Amino acid sequence: MKRRDFFRNAALTAAAATVTSPFSSLGNSRNHPPQGRGKVARNIIFMVSDGMSAGTLTMANMLSELRDGRLSTWMSLYHDGTVSRGLMDTASANSLVTDSSAASSAWGGGVRVNNGVLNVAPDGSRPIPILQKFKAAGKAVGCVTTVPITHATPAGFCVNNDSRSAQAEIALAYHDLRFDVMMGGGTEYFDSERRKDKQDVFGKFRKSGFRVVQTRDELLAADAAGDAAPLLGVFHADGLPYALDREHDEQLKNNTPSLAEMVESAIRRLSKNRNGFVLQVEGGKVDWAAHANDIGGLLFDQLAFEEALATAIAFAKADGDTLVIVTTDHGNANPGLFGGTKDFERVFRFRHTNDWVLQGIDRDFTAAQVRERIEHAHGYAISANEAIQLLAHYVTDRNEDGLYNPYKLPFADLAAIQRKYTSVGWASTGHSGDHVEVAAFGPGQQLLRPFVRNTDMHHLMLEAAGVAANVNRSGRF
Amino acid sequence: MKRRDFFRNAALTAAAATVTSPFSSLGNSRNHPPQGRGKVARNIIFMVSDGMSAGTLTMANMLSELRDGRLSTWMSLYHDGTVSRGLMDTASANSLVTDSSAASSAWGGGVRVNNGVLNVAPDGSRPIPILQKFKAAGKAVGCVTTVPITHATPAGFCVNNDSRSAQAEIALAYHDLRFDVMMGGGTEYFDSERRKDKQDVFGKFRKSGFRVVQTRDELLAADAAGDAAPLLGVFHADGLPYALDREHDEQLKNNTPSLAEMVESAIRRLSKNRNGFVLQVEGGKVDWAAHANDIGGLLFDQLAFEEALATAIAFAKADGDTLVIVTTDHGNANPGLFGGTKDFERVFRFRHTNDWVLQGIDRDFTAAQVRERIEHAHGYAISANEAIQLLAHYVTDRNEDGLYNPYKLPFADLAAIQRKYTSVGWASTGHSGDHVEVAAFGPGQQLLRPFVRNTDMHHLMLEAAGVAANVNRSGRF
Repeated sequence: MKRRDFFRNAALTAAAATVTSPFSSLGNSRNHPPQGRGKVARNIIFMVSDGMSAGTLTMANMLSELRDGRLSTWMSLYHDGTVSRGLMDTASANSLVTDSSAASSAWGGGVRVNNGVLNVAPDGSRPIPILQKFKAAGKAVGCVTTVPITHATPAGFCVNNDSRSAQAEIALAYHDLRFDVMMGGGTEYFDSERRKDKQDVFGKFRKSGFRVVQTRDELLAADAAGDAAPLLGVFHADGLPYALDREHDEQLKNNTPSLAEMVESAIRRLSKNRNGFVLQVEGGKVDWAAHANDIGGLLFDQLAFEEALATAIAFAKADGDTLVIVTTDHGNANPGLFGGTKDFERVFRFRHTNDWVLQGIDRDFTAAQVRERIEHAHGYAISANEAIQLLAHYVTDRNEDGLYNPYKLPFADLAAIQRKYTSVGWASTGHSGDHVEVAAFGPGQQLLRPFVRNTDMHHLMLEAAGVAANVNRSGRF
Repeated sequence: MKRRDFFRNAALTAAAATVTSPFSSLGNSRNHPPQGRGKVARNIIFMVSDGMSAGTLTMANMLSELRDGRLSTWMSLYHDGTVSRGLMDTASANSLVTDSSAASSAWGGGVRVNNGVLNVAPDGSRPIPILQKFKAAGKAVGCVTTVPITHATPAGFCVNNDSRSAQAEIALAYHDLRFDVMMGGGTEYFDSERRKDKQDVFGKFRKSGFRVVQTRDELLAADAAGDAAPLLGVFHADGLPYALDREHDEQLKNNTPSLAEMVESAIRRLSKNRNGFVLQVEGGKVDWAAHANDIGGLLFDQLAFEEALATAIAFAKADGDTLVIVTTDHGNANPGLFGGTKDFERVFRFRHTNDWVLQGIDRDFTAAQVRERIEHAHGYAISANEAIQLLAHYVTDRNEDGLYNPYKLPFADLAAIQRKYTSVGWASTGHSGDHVEVAAFGPGQQLLRPFVRNTDMHHLMLEAAGVAANVNRSGRF
């Protein structure tokens, strides 16, 4: 497939209801040799399934194989034998267990920083974030994510900040950086009514010549118009809906693009630049689902991430000058399947996430209503006692704590009940220190060694693209 | 290093108290190219850390890096870039989550069988186990393990049996097979006083010309004598002691060899055969420790396994004709580090396993004595309430269940208490369905694809060694 055919075959312009992969032949090209040895990568697509433990990658493949009769996209890349693979040590400057800001900073700045920090080293130095380097070197750059675009993983490629929490400030920094494509959630950091300082950041972007879109339709229209303006797309107040919930809700489907759709749109825009592009793509809610031990959220968002990976690989194959790197920033919760195949098959029939289930329950629910809601969402009824146990959290006190759980919903309790039905177990509701998968496809893939530190990826990207490490913000060396 | 220097430098003949690795330069040979492309493997060493989840591999490396300032053996092989790597799908014929007998049968017979079965396919056919094929092809063959030598993982390379539990029968089958080296635990299946049928299986082996050894000293003496007889070494009634407990008990150290010592002895014997050899090595108690959520048992046995891996790699480097494969049969418990580095460092100072702690407590203990025992074993004191909680299992009822826990000791409860001190969490006390690491070094390593099914390894070994798949038991094709 030639590069122009990638766009001709692509799904977004065809306004198809679902994204048809534009490279249906991928699974058959078994002996495709590694390509691009020694060549410079004009483009780089760096893909992060955030907080993906080994069990997440595995169970997504199991789901794909058993339900759909084919390997997951990630595993089919391995099966084809066309990628380089490594295990990556994910530690931060101050812990064996990183958070997402330190992890993205390691890639983005090439230096390990403390957890919670964006590209500010323990010695106070501020390494230049990689997208600033690439922008200075003449490339178009951007980020696409399913969580707020101001969140830790995109921010680590873009800005220096003492705190990942400074998302309102990061939104303003993005304005000044004038990157070419920024898409995700996080309206609360751009909308004057939602920001504490009441600044109209959306307006600021518009005045500076950005195309600003807030729905899938607006994105499609902007793509169809084919304008060359930089793009800001913010499709939800917070994170975008889970892929599973979106799939079963026509309104969500119409209003918010899938990650693959955003990636395709981003590639279409960025690839117009003659000097190439660098794009970071994050499946951010894989991490949120792991924190919540939410198996439906986890696996269907992992598959949605891999659908976006398929889009990137299809472009890279058509283009020939594009390096795709796919990895995660750290493990999370180390889930696994610990029982029968039949139990696991229950997950195939899920219509909604645990997030959807628990957000929709309130203290006026009866146990029967809880059972009914879960049967609707998951296809099986829990016992009356289990429903009463869940309901207790709402009636007496919402007493579960944790990151990404502002309403203290009983996520861990539901996961423990669910385990009896699905045989999926979890070791925690937090990040793990596990070494993680990293794979590379395209020119520069030969630079990936079988064991790497997260910081090595910074230098690998620069080397693959032939951009000097010491390029400064103004583009001079 | 030449092949004869491997033996000259090796530790066992030097009667050193600890095994000094005979290849101290390994960590420095960073750019060693992959070797042996296209060459036939005269020897194969197939190494299995049984039940090793990604977190186990990772935490062993963390321990090695932080405590000793060097990468673990497994990670240094990756760092050197000299190996091929794959992810392996571990499913059995009847489950996404395999047991060890079905897993070893997949490698050993090339066919997926149901859990609990040794090389008997669901259709009743009985594929020839791989060590029988290699023996028929003129190679010396053997197995070395830290659990009973009649246990599932070695048995899957050797015999056909409807049940992995038939260990007494398997001991007799080993006699008839006349393999060259069989070492591990499991006296109960060989000793006339311990066998139900009162057969003197040790005597049977002796009468048939085997050298039979039951202590480390006897093994050393047999090695020093340099006899050419086939060897049966059985060093414990059940599994061998955990590496951590052995390390802090002079008597255990003197009576039982380490896995690395057994491997070195096995290689010494097997490599005398002109047509080469095939050896399976199992770190079997990594799996038992994972079932028990026993972090000291887990990590120090993983390191002991990797010490044996270092021995195998040193031989393979010296020899040049040896393919080393290192992998696991399935994940187990999916442990991970979920908190601070300081907490994890507590594990460095462990003197004993949880197994040692709990086996030594009885209902007459006071809470103060429990705390004292744990402080002695682990270097920190648990709270009085935690000690009372543990003791309750002994006073009222031994009520924890599970594989490898015949005395119903409170392993999971101790692990839950321990988590507050070490930040190590566990998702289960059983096997997981995770895809797992597999790596290969030496001639034939290029045959390892990045994604494989467990059964692929059967055919890979035969192809690497140039032995036809359909060789039958009598050695004819």
